[in-house]
Amino acid sequence: MKIDILTIFPEMFKGPLTCSLLAKARDKKILKISCTDIRSFTKDKHNKVDDRPFGGGPGMVMKPEPIYEALKSVGVKKRNNLYKNPLKKPLVIYMSPQGKTLNTNTVKKIAQHEHLVLLCGHYEGIDERVMQWVDKEISIGDYVLTGGEIPAMVLIDSVARMLPEVVQDKLSVQQDSFYNGLLDYPHYTRPAEFKKMKVPKVLLSGNHLEIEKWRKEQALERTKKRRPDLLKK
Amino acid sequence: MKIDILTIFPEMFKGPLTCSLLAKARDKKILKISCTDIRSFTKDKHNKVDDRPFGGGPGMVMKPEPIYEALKSVGVKKRNNLYKNPLKKPLVIYMSPQGKTLNTNTVKKIAQHEHLVLLCGHYEGIDERVMQWVDKEISIGDYVLTGGEIPAMVLIDSVARMLPEVVQDKLSVQQDSFYNGLLDYPHYTRPAEFKKMKVPKVLLSGNHLEIEKWRKEQALERTKKRRPDLLKK
Repeated sequence: MKIDILTIFPEMFKGPLTCSLLAKARDKKILKISCTDIRSFTKDKHNKVDDRPFGGGPGMVMKPEPIYEALKSVGVKKRNNLYKNPLKKPLVIYMSPQGKTLNTNTVKKIAQHEHLVLLCGHYEGIDERVMQWVDKEISIGDYVLTGGEIPAMVLIDSVARMLPEVVQDKLSVQQDSFYNGLLDYPHYTRPAEFKKMKVPKVLLSGNHLEIEKWRKEQALERTKKRRPDLLKK
Repeated sequence: MKIDILTIFPEMFKGPLTCSLLAKARDKKILKISCTDIRSFTKDKHNKVDDRPFGGGPGMVMKPEPIYEALKSVGVKKRNNLYKNPLKKPLVIYMSPQGKTLNTNTVKKIAQHEHLVLLCGHYEGIDERVMQWVDKEISIGDYVLTGGEIPAMVLIDSVARMLPEVVQDKLSVQQDSFYNGLLDYPHYTRPAEFKKMKVPKVLLSGNHLEIEKWRKEQALERTKKRRPDLLKK
């Protein structure tokens, strides 16, 4: 999978994209990630990416031209019907609190595409006319952040986990929270006793049926208590 | 506000904490952020932070001792009643998909505390017994990530926006999405015509009552169409 990030803060991605699982996926060439600086497409002498909003009000709005040029530079064309296979088309995602909320199902669908273009907004947002070139508007949750960069990291990390060969242990992904609509059960490791707290006896029993039963109960109980909304779905 | 991040990947935070709004808040000393490497509290020769789960199953679990020692090192004590003012107590937050889902209301509450300790998990999670020292378990959304580092960045960025003097324009924060329970209205900036697309006439009218009315309608319509769940609340 190829991912192009369009941002005015490319340096924000230095740490997150060069550690842990993402670093491994890039080393193995499963994932190719590039950052494109939107500011490099400005044509005025101050390299202005934003301007005041029409109609007044607080804050600044990102100008349409530099974003349009940046989109073109990574291969985004307006006519989607140029592609026979829609999964080969660059999927342009605008990270924005106005979008649909990301969840595991959306992550799985996005992971099927071959080329993602993640557009990161800043200030009050981007000029609405750019939405002509955007396929999906995605929010990572009901809170506001300074820009779309951290949301783009969230999307990249969650999508990368779904790619074949990125997470070694497939069972591990399938037992993740939400994958089966439930929260995860509690985990314990050595030592068997820590600060006078013991590991639940059943986990030391060696009885795999009993262990599985206990874990299912715990996952269900936890979901009921903390996230009853998940059970309704 | 003081924020301690406990992580096994401190280098992930380099870019995100040194750009944009967070860099400014740190320069102004409104925000003090430190990373503590959990691995530096391991005592075995291989600096092992994880081990296999009791009861079997895929993946690894983060061991309790190094996390406990890391928590102690940043001033976390077990007895919460040592603090007369609960807002002065270090608020220990475990970033985990098992937690309650973050939203703007939770962000506002967390922003009142003076000292946050953000614990980032990895692998299948942390040994459950560590939860004795955790005040809040927070999820940023219904998807799974490799670790708690990117969720910690989300929390830090959203909380920083709520601190006085971080965002210059207070109106800007109050008009953000979700702040008033609605999505934001569309924004436009110069040029008035871009690729044959014009800015909505009302925004050029200079009639502030009409502009406000149009924006409210747009925000409401958008919320109805994209996030009817927000309107029910």
